[in-house]
Amino acid sequence: MIADKLYKKAIEISPVCVGLDSQIAYVPGCIRAKDISEGEKIFEFNRQIIDAVYENVACFKVQVAYYEALGIDGMRAYAKTLQYIRKKGAIAIADVKRGDISSTAIQYAKGHFEGDFESDYMTLNAYMGQDAISPYYPYLKEKNKGLFLLLKTSNPSSADFQDVLVGKRPFYELVAEKIEQWGEAFIGSEGFSAVGAVVGLTYPSEFLRIVKQMPHTFFLIPGYGAQGGTGKDIAQIFQDKICGVVNSSRGLITAHQGKTEDTDFIEYIQQAVMAMKEDIVKWL
Amino acid sequence: MIADKLYKKAIEISPVCVGLDSQIAYVPGCIRAKDISEGEKIFEFNRQIIDAVYENVACFKVQVAYYEALGIDGMRAYAKTLQYIRKKGAIAIADVKRGDISSTAIQYAKGHFEGDFESDYMTLNAYMGQDAISPYYPYLKEKNKGLFLLLKTSNPSSADFQDVLVGKRPFYELVAEKIEQWGEAFIGSEGFSAVGAVVGLTYPSEFLRIVKQMPHTFFLIPGYGAQGGTGKDIAQIFQDKICGVVNSSRGLITAHQGKTEDTDFIEYIQQAVMAMKEDIVKWL
Repeated sequence: MIADKLYKKAIEISPVCVGLDSQIAYVPGCIRAKDISEGEKIFEFNRQIIDAVYENVACFKVQVAYYEALGIDGMRAYAKTLQYIRKKGAIAIADVKRGDISSTAIQYAKGHFEGDFESDYMTLNAYMGQDAISPYYPYLKEKNKGLFLLLKTSNPSSADFQDVLVGKRPFYELVAEKIEQWGEAFIGSEGFSAVGAVVGLTYPSEFLRIVKQMPHTFFLIPGYGAQGGTGKDIAQIFQDKICGVVNSSRGLITAHQGKTEDTDFIEYIQQAVMAMKEDIVKWL
Repeated sequence: MIADKLYKKAIEISPVCVGLDSQIAYVPGCIRAKDISEGEKIFEFNRQIIDAVYENVACFKVQVAYYEALGIDGMRAYAKTLQYIRKKGAIAIADVKRGDISSTAIQYAKGHFEGDFESDYMTLNAYMGQDAISPYYPYLKEKNKGLFLLLKTSNPSSADFQDVLVGKRPFYELVAEKIEQWGEAFIGSEGFSAVGAVVGLTYPSEFLRIVKQMPHTFFLIPGYGAQGGTGKDIAQIFQDKICGVVNSSRGLITAHQGKTEDTDFIEYIQQAVMAMKEDIVKWL
């Protein structure tokens, strides 16, 4: 079960998730100078990052938008990045936030859990309700895949809809209730479900309430570093047990910027990953 | 302004939107027998459909999930399909339902409003709030692009979250209010905004209330045909004025199935499109 595997990596290695929101502006001169396509440069950048840090992190999250932005060339880099992560035995989260009616969801499941873009986990948007999520279920049991559903996101405008009061509760608590309930059929031996949730670290007190409400849910936690979340915030959320992985993207993969354009760029990124690992692990 | 262009096509030609949710099972034997990739077969199927019907419809909607399901080969077919629609002077709606934080939204906008996957309109999910939508705004003014935001979707489980009562109003009415408000800065000469909304035809009485609440919003309306909506339902929604385009996918592009595997397949699809056009226009 994928949630067991991810949980074990989180406790045995570290709960760090490296976000490969890679764009050409982040790629150092030594790779940019090569006579290859933009997508190939980005893949080469990713490949070196994966090689350098995969033994110190729980997983990688690949934000598909950065690859779609480059068209076919970018999608090729996206496929190669996912394949490389998985070849290393690391866990690949496809951050695609898809959400659509069941006939369409069947196609998205096929697209991101099989073939060129195969990942271990994908993120989904649950706004359309259960029948937009259930088509992915066969993959959870039969192909050992996992989901992270958007619950309370890290951006300032998440309040627009997610915080609206329904009776006395914020809307996102209804979503939390459904996610915990949908996940009950997919709980692994470590007590966590393959139906996880995305909750931003930018709202720590809300997060703590959510964690208590969702004992079987494993979390994908954006918002560390560039977006403002700290190791101390994470410690508070993990006070009972480690129940998620913490993503940082820009904070890690731009660590070399302004310092080097040469092949030693990877050392800066590696240091940033180790510093994040320390910052989290020291509180646990 | 794109909303003016789409509105004019809807009143002058017909409000029909052909959904190219194309999969290999729909492609007739005469194309399937060719020695080309699956993606190329699907593009050839789409190309013949576009040629046959573009003068009788308002626009085409391309559901990206069907193309992502085929990996890189599928994404190439997706790009070629969008490019072919636009080359014909027809309007291409990228049904991608993206929704993410602003830095990511910038990448999605670039991906679907420029380059290989350039479309005229894209569908978005607004669950993350305004800052997940505003990064697309520069494209509305500067590149003549449009958006359709998910409001009340056509699937049975749309009730799970969209119908939840907030005070005395269903949640989707709050989304409606925001969409109408966000669109105010982008109203064209015909009175419609470039920020449109997706509302399923499967809930006609709710739809009528929404239309009255959103005088400047143009709608993308799924749910006709295979999902149960009828021309009479549309007439009720368009009673004051034509304020949207009506999509059918399977109901049109599988019209030849069980009848022919030969090159005359296109006549069945053409007839189905004409029948849908009649069924809608006769009530207006």
